Amino acid sequence: MFRKLLSFDEARKIIQEQFKPHFLGEEEIVLLEASNRVLSENVFSTLDIPPFNRSTVDGYAVKAQNTFGADENAPISLRVCGVVNVGEEPGIKVANGEAVEIVTGAPIPEGADAVVMVEDTERENGELRIFSAVTPNENTMKKGSDIKKGQIVLKKGQVLGSSEIGVLAALGLVSAKVLKIPIVAVLSTGGEVNELGKELPPGKIYDINAYSISTAIIESGGKPVYLGVVPDDKKALSKAMQTALASTDMIITSGGVSVGPKDYTPQIVDSLGEPGVVVYGIAVKPGKPTTVGFVGEKPVFSLPGHPTSALLIFYLLARPMILQLAGRPTGDLKSVKAAASSRMFSAKGRRTFVMVKLEFDQSCRLIADPVETGASGAITTLASADGFVEIPENEQFVDVDQEVTVFLLRGFIGKA
Amino acid sequence: MFRKLLSFDEARKIIQEQFKPHFLGEEEIVLLEASNRVLSENVFSTLDIPPFNRSTVDGYAVKAQNTFGADENAPISLRVCGVVNVGEEPGIKVANGEAVEIVTGAPIPEGADAVVMVEDTERENGELRIFSAVTPNENTMKKGSDIKKGQIVLKKGQVLGSSEIGVLAALGLVSAKVLKIPIVAVLSTGGEVNELGKELPPGKIYDINAYSISTAIIESGGKPVYLGVVPDDKKALSKAMQTALASTDMIITSGGVSVGPKDYTPQIVDSLGEPGVVVYGIAVKPGKPTTVGFVGEKPVFSLPGHPTSALLIFYLLARPMILQLAGRPTGDLKSVKAAASSRMFSAKGRRTFVMVKLEFDQSCRLIADPVETGASGAITTLASADGFVEIPENEQFVDVDQEVTVFLLRGFIGKA
Repeated sequence: MFRKLLSFDEARKIIQEQFKPHFLGEEEIVLLEASNRVLSENVFSTLDIPPFNRSTVDGYAVKAQNTFGADENAPISLRVCGVVNVGEEPGIKVANGEAVEIVTGAPIPEGADAVVMVEDTERENGELRIFSAVTPNENTMKKGSDIKKGQIVLKKGQVLGSSEIGVLAALGLVSAKVLKIPIVAVLSTGGEVNELGKELPPGKIYDINAYSISTAIIESGGKPVYLGVVPDDKKALSKAMQTALASTDMIITSGGVSVGPKDYTPQIVDSLGEPGVVVYGIAVKPGKPTTVGFVGEKPVFSLPGHPTSALLIFYLLARPMILQLAGRPTGDLKSVKAAASSRMFSAKGRRTFVMVKLEFDQSCRLIADPVETGASGAITTLASADGFVEIPENEQFVDVDQEVTVFLLRGFIGKA
Repeated sequence: MFRKLLSFDEARKIIQEQFKPHFLGEEEIVLLEASNRVLSENVFSTLDIPPFNRSTVDGYAVKAQNTFGADENAPISLRVCGVVNVGEEPGIKVANGEAVEIVTGAPIPEGADAVVMVEDTERENGELRIFSAVTPNENTMKKGSDIKKGQIVLKKGQVLGSSEIGVLAALGLVSAKVLKIPIVAVLSTGGEVNELGKELPPGKIYDINAYSISTAIIESGGKPVYLGVVPDDKKALSKAMQTALASTDMIITSGGVSVGPKDYTPQIVDSLGEPGVVVYGIAVKPGKPTTVGFVGEKPVFSLPGHPTSALLIFYLLARPMILQLAGRPTGDLKSVKAAASSRMFSAKGRRTFVMVKLEFDQSCRLIADPVETGASGAITTLASADGFVEIPENEQFVDVDQEVTVFLLRGFIGKA
């Protein structure tokens, strides 16, 4: 099974062409749990908002024409014949020569068509003096003037934040229909990988990738399902992947890909269904031994074993798919501009990603400082890298002090 | 109870001085649930990483001195006496004149101190020819060279993202000690406010704020507890606030503050304990009728009833407190630069916040377009505003085409 090493752009193009994000179904969820979920349908208003004509000020509901001509020097007198509070149906009508005390948000009583602000009045028992005329509808808000019944208020695909949840509440809805969360199977391969919580036998290391990748899946709007460390044997891996295909929307394995004779993953992916492996190795550094395939419409990623490489390739290639399956926009990773603290070299002919730590220097300039990512810095890199710098294939290096774009792997907020 | 209307900066300063973020306790949580939580203690490595000397390449483990002098023209021959795979304890020793086949990640067998890459060898049955000399330690990674046992790897206060969870997994930890999430009581006041899911009686509106604010609390790292709509009566509100104080870390009410005679909230806050109300009204627009108090160390916010005003004041003043209680950095809201689509006026002598919708114009310039926020646009604003522009007290307006900073209320990612 020989395949040409693809360039990063070729690999990404092939993946994008092959990937058809399909509808995973919807579910109904109560409002307070719906935060950060994606609407699966347009939401139409089931009522007029406001549901009644209401006052926008504290004052007196009147017939506007009764106030015409009123000013500082020539107040007009009306008789106060009642009060309307918020939350009450007004049990009162306003006739000519009458005014009804009203507070902000209360319904305008029948007969009235405007509200005089309390600041423009003086009251003595039942008599009200008005020092400023109002026009019809002044200081009132008509039923349905904010939102009309039947109007579309939120659109399919919108992510529910505080404002959108507020809109749903305004309609009196207790739940929302949202897209199902894509379920991603996470499994680890490699004879040296040991599950957490078990004592570490000689020659073994703990399973890092399943946990870092699972967290990155959550951050991308997916739900990881950890299938554990699969024994280093073709049958076991094939069986684990069949189980994963039957019960999840996407598979991400890590490790095993570059270990030569024992790398069964691509063969298994090919054997499980069409089209099988579509990307077998990418001319990037790090992350060269990345395999991407599809079984039917389900993507299957085999990420490298090195923790930083695995996470990097996840962010570059797998994350956009999870976002799309989740119905979310696939924007670029957040980025900041910084100055390179030292020369960063690229790997000949390979798109190179250099992990960096961000720091402010004495003159408050943001500095991108490369972090060791080789075999000797697996955990150090995870613990200290804030993001990565991308160097194109046709550039030899980024020079000291050169401005670079740093794509962020975590929030950089408040680190200053 | 007369208090001077404070400027926005004065109000913020008083709140900051009064607020002492206290330790809410810690809890132990399994790794896959710990995403986005805040570490409550420093994490020290309990093991050397790697836990053994390992090979960083596929090749042959040798004594380096046995290869000295080897080159293309003068290969040196060694006898292959075994294999070490990943995950195995090598049951073999390397003596002078011997080599052991080894793969990336496998432990270096006793006696060997370097690894010759497979590319630099030729093998015929048991005989290995080496075409390139290696120096001691070449292509190996020493036990503890990435992280030493006892070394600090993550610090108290770090937010757990994919990298940090990966680091915890590398140590074999199945759980992490994290700060407790601040619990924020949310209650609504106002006689016109109706709980969701119940039919809307005449004169009433649904409770929007409890839901929009609850979602904003979640987004700020807190856990909202909805105490419902409190009946419009002093005793009921006092009792609800006492319950909230006994069981939560902070209280946020909305509505009721500007409705004159029926606004008991400040009196109740004052009656519940020292120092009571510290901010009673702020010279901002919108959001003037905002009350902030403390009962002991617990903050009590009374936000305005208008949904956009309530959410805005939440973001400006309450969110930083929740972030601090949660042990998170309180950075500014995310912001983008945009050009004003029309003149935006400020309210005389008040810090003014103008809600805007962001759009790209035909030349791909980002435009900030003001959204109606008055009484007549409550829901429309929630549904369409992407953020807000701040106009200082001493400026009359922002001019058309002027560059403004738009603070984002939701993710703007991918909207282009």
